[in-house]
Amino acid sequence: MARVHNFNAGPAALPLAALERARDELVDVSGSGMSVMEHSHRGKVYEAIHNEAIALVRELLGVSDAYEVLLLQGGATQQFAVVPLNLLKPGQSADYVVTGHWSKRAVAEAKPLGTVRVAGSTEQNGKYPRVATDADLSLDPNAAYVHITSNNTIEGTQFHQFPRSGNVPLVADMSSDIMWRPFDVSQFGIIYAGAQKNLGPSGVTLVIVRKDLVAAGRTDIPSIFQYQTHAKNNSLFNTPPTFGVYMLRNVLAWLKGLGGLGAMERINRQKADLIYGAIEARPDFYRSPVEKGSRSTMNVVFNLPTPELEEEFVKAGQKQGMVGLKGHRSVGGIRASIYNAVPLEAVQALVSLMGDFHKEG
Amino acid sequence: MARVHNFNAGPAALPLAALERARDELVDVSGSGMSVMEHSHRGKVYEAIHNEAIALVRELLGVSDAYEVLLLQGGATQQFAVVPLNLLKPGQSADYVVTGHWSKRAVAEAKPLGTVRVAGSTEQNGKYPRVATDADLSLDPNAAYVHITSNNTIEGTQFHQFPRSGNVPLVADMSSDIMWRPFDVSQFGIIYAGAQKNLGPSGVTLVIVRKDLVAAGRTDIPSIFQYQTHAKNNSLFNTPPTFGVYMLRNVLAWLKGLGGLGAMERINRQKADLIYGAIEARPDFYRSPVEKGSRSTMNVVFNLPTPELEEEFVKAGQKQGMVGLKGHRSVGGIRASIYNAVPLEAVQALVSLMGDFHKEG
Repeated sequence: MARVHNFNAGPAALPLAALERARDELVDVSGSGMSVMEHSHRGKVYEAIHNEAIALVRELLGVSDAYEVLLLQGGATQQFAVVPLNLLKPGQSADYVVTGHWSKRAVAEAKPLGTVRVAGSTEQNGKYPRVATDADLSLDPNAAYVHITSNNTIEGTQFHQFPRSGNVPLVADMSSDIMWRPFDVSQFGIIYAGAQKNLGPSGVTLVIVRKDLVAAGRTDIPSIFQYQTHAKNNSLFNTPPTFGVYMLRNVLAWLKGLGGLGAMERINRQKADLIYGAIEARPDFYRSPVEKGSRSTMNVVFNLPTPELEEEFVKAGQKQGMVGLKGHRSVGGIRASIYNAVPLEAVQALVSLMGDFHKEG
Repeated sequence: MARVHNFNAGPAALPLAALERARDELVDVSGSGMSVMEHSHRGKVYEAIHNEAIALVRELLGVSDAYEVLLLQGGATQQFAVVPLNLLKPGQSADYVVTGHWSKRAVAEAKPLGTVRVAGSTEQNGKYPRVATDADLSLDPNAAYVHITSNNTIEGTQFHQFPRSGNVPLVADMSSDIMWRPFDVSQFGIIYAGAQKNLGPSGVTLVIVRKDLVAAGRTDIPSIFQYQTHAKNNSLFNTPPTFGVYMLRNVLAWLKGLGGLGAMERINRQKADLIYGAIEARPDFYRSPVEKGSRSTMNVVFNLPTPELEEEFVKAGQKQGMVGLKGHRSVGGIRASIYNAVPLEAVQALVSLMGDFHKEG
């Protein structure tokens, strides 16, 4: 079957070039007579791929030597627990900024591990129409860290300016928008991201953590959960998800070939502008539940006049080879996830459908 | 390049049929116009693969309804911590049987989480020439569980009869020998295994856990670490490593096609007998450091008269397309890992080399 237009929220579209490279090398990588999956994680062939993936993260994001770049397992959900396991010490408290479903999940996972404070929430009648500004927050200057969710996949909102947390380390779950554009890593103490939106397949978790926080991490917890362990061992303490790291390398090599994050940002803004433009062009028919300043460039959510029309819209999209347009079950509506690997043509097809469907509707 | 003879200790050889299937479907699985990596973990295409993988585990091992079959992340090393996190409650103690490097690692990860007791060790002058028998053990009838390592990859030893732990749940790390043959799952409270030896690629962890232990697990820990969470959600609480599960399915489908675990055992015994036979045929030249009753069918370790000859042997193997023959750095010598997917022909080539090298040596 021809490639579909994949608007899945994650796992999501991957660059065709990265997939084709994996296909071509699947049984024999680097002329080694073995699949990358059959190589020892302590051998030269895999090690070169592993180190290239880490070097590409550093290069694309401009990560300084003040940070460790770790490739771990367990996804963002595991980091919800691992961050407080490392940084939240007895007697301390951590600040959480709640801007949607995934921020709440981060709070829930941290609660059994220490004192957790909601330092700000943008909840309005059960919905989260925007992200937080500094004015929304009452930060504790003694907090162990401040946690944010940079992009809210379900609510379709995104931080376009990050909170200023002063001397308190800012920790960001960037699972759904890391590398959508260049940004200054030095604002953050920790950045983490499950790979399955912008970076690669599920099963790999990128963690960028400032070295002083690594060094200050708790050592009275199992070593598998300590950032120190993984930093000392170049993420080879235990067997890494080798194929996932290989795919991450393929995706980042594609991103670099495209021109890096500056080029990626231009394409992503073009894609997002097209869909938001189509919504605004027909305000009687399409409606965004998100405040303008908080609109996500990664997950565009919108509503039609009725749930029945939304259902028809999803079906009309399916007929034209579009998948993943149904909004999250908790909020309904339509959601188009347009991560880095979703090509402009997919967005153009969606915008064309939005025009046609409105006329027929 | 032609397929090599892959004796890697893990990640290790995978069945060529499972790899070729992955290659052929990599860009388009099930005629969906997407890679399996691009499918939502909540969609029908992935869900069918996920459920097939779990069903194949149940079928091949004969797992009864008294057990949950979970597919998790983090490898055996993470389970070293997750088992005590779930089962070791305040005031309780857990028994560990130490038969090598990985048992010691399991003890080390559990120690920060509660009281850990070594209930038996087969250490002799820093080496572990055999596994434990019931006579070696002093088990605590009130222990939360008894932990064993069923196969010791570095030492080349394997339990051929499992300890009797009475009413105390027996927990086994079977990472390096699960599914090498049929066995009675009902002897165990928990069985866990990183996939990267007998089951698939690294990044997937199989956990088989008795339902009463799931229900009795601690609930005051982050939900990501609770077996209950994953059992209630069919291992879809958080995004699973979808490609890894897909490969697990491919490997298990191959194993079923071969005739299941009975057929696999016959082939594995034939492979192991060939190498142990070659060692015994030249007792002046090849020497096994392992007691006969503890010999592993998965990792055959042996020594030559000098480290220099061992180095030459590894090089001679490389010239004939054999990789992974060097013993673990902590013990030296030669190690041939002959997991399920290592074909008989690879073993025949090794045995032929052993004969030739001895004559020339």
